Amino acid sequence: MIKPHTKARLFINVPLKDGKIITLASHQMHYLLHVLRLGVGAPIAVFNGVDGEYLATISEAVKKRCSVSIKLRLRPQIHCRDLWLLFAPVKKARLDFIAQKASELGVRVIWPVKTDFCQISRVNDDRLATNAIEAAEQTERLDIAKIKPFSSLSTALQHFENERLLIWCDEASAGHPSLNISTALANAPPHEKAAILIGPEGGFSESERTHLQSQINCLKISLGPRILRADTAAISALSCYQSICGDWQN
Amino acid sequence: MIKPHTKARLFINVPLKDGKIITLASHQMHYLLHVLRLGVGAPIAVFNGVDGEYLATISEAVKKRCSVSIKLRLRPQIHCRDLWLLFAPVKKARLDFIAQKASELGVRVIWPVKTDFCQISRVNDDRLATNAIEAAEQTERLDIAKIKPFSSLSTALQHFENERLLIWCDEASAGHPSLNISTALANAPPHEKAAILIGPEGGFSESERTHLQSQINCLKISLGPRILRADTAAISALSCYQSICGDWQN
Repeated sequence: MIKPHTKARLFINVPLKDGKIITLASHQMHYLLHVLRLGVGAPIAVFNGVDGEYLATISEAVKKRCSVSIKLRLRPQIHCRDLWLLFAPVKKARLDFIAQKASELGVRVIWPVKTDFCQISRVNDDRLATNAIEAAEQTERLDIAKIKPFSSLSTALQHFENERLLIWCDEASAGHPSLNISTALANAPPHEKAAILIGPEGGFSESERTHLQSQINCLKISLGPRILRADTAAISALSCYQSICGDWQN
Repeated sequence: MIKPHTKARLFINVPLKDGKIITLASHQMHYLLHVLRLGVGAPIAVFNGVDGEYLATISEAVKKRCSVSIKLRLRPQIHCRDLWLLFAPVKKARLDFIAQKASELGVRVIWPVKTDFCQISRVNDDRLATNAIEAAEQTERLDIAKIKPFSSLSTALQHFENERLLIWCDEASAGHPSLNISTALANAPPHEKAAILIGPEGGFSESERTHLQSQINCLKISLGPRILRADTAAISALSCYQSICGDWQN
């Protein structure tokens, strides 16, 4: 089926099926009617992370209410690979940015973790989720990355299944060609589940390094000779992963 | 030699040699004295993109003047690979961001190009240069990416030497596994010079596509099945390049 030209793509957190009428949240109404200046009859795409993607049209647009009518399914549901991003959070704009880019790059779980040298003590989960949703709307993905609550690195590691490959981006290995991420990933064991770990800009503590080194199924990698900021490192590692082991391949 | 612990790293655009005293620009003085709260005697690292990296100490800090005294050379000069980034510019914050990230990822030339569907008509070169310099200071690189003036894509392509590999990130090839960037780069011909081209978010026009397809030494690649924003695409492609063909290898 040729996809009809739709002017917008929205995540709507309710079950979707043909013929249903759905009243939009006020921020979605504002976006459609005032930012994009759409009116009744305009076609949009909607998805809920479960039921695939649907064509819908704006069926009502009055002062305080905007509804859409679900027309037909455009694509069946697919889910991104079981890839997690664990990272020591950074300050506001770059934290938003990590959530957006992780979502664009097809991460299933976004997990801010507290490390010994992490300077941040609180993370706004709702804000991360909003960023992940907006990026999913934009990037045409059909599922939404799940935001895990900010917890310590050791707590997060306890949740690892043995078969999950932990790709540890180790700033202390910067510039070691033998640990170059593309070489390491090309030789990685076959796996269905993976997680990428990005440390804080001050690196990992000695006890964290010992803990990570003892972790089952841990692949220590280098992201080249220069010092990358945490947000750059996250995007770099996710891109190499998706291209070499992930869904850019098939 | 073990590198001494320095609190800051500054790009200074003058010749460097042992014993020289250099008066800093006011923004550098502000950064050292008021942001980092350093005083006379504090060690910093300096580089000029030509002479390598030097240890220096703050030798004078009075109301309107701050000078540093160059002590000894820490590292000889090295240059990043001959890798260019050509991209259709986007709006402010994300444009700054592209310049920063390209600099972190070791690009030698940053070249904003006007394409048929590009929405931007002017680019502030000085602002791009400032972003590239700040990222170089932070990322420990020893050279500074050169900013080329905003020009049309066809003008930029006229400046290509035949031996420069053009890596064309083609949004119309999204999701074609046979064009997956890591596979394409692993099979790319040996080359010393390369350029990565990222289009505007509306893609390339038909005439641009024809022009690019006829370009000597052009490698069309895909960055996976999702639609990436232009800044994400730039970082993704640069990371895969550096890891597979570039200086993450050696």
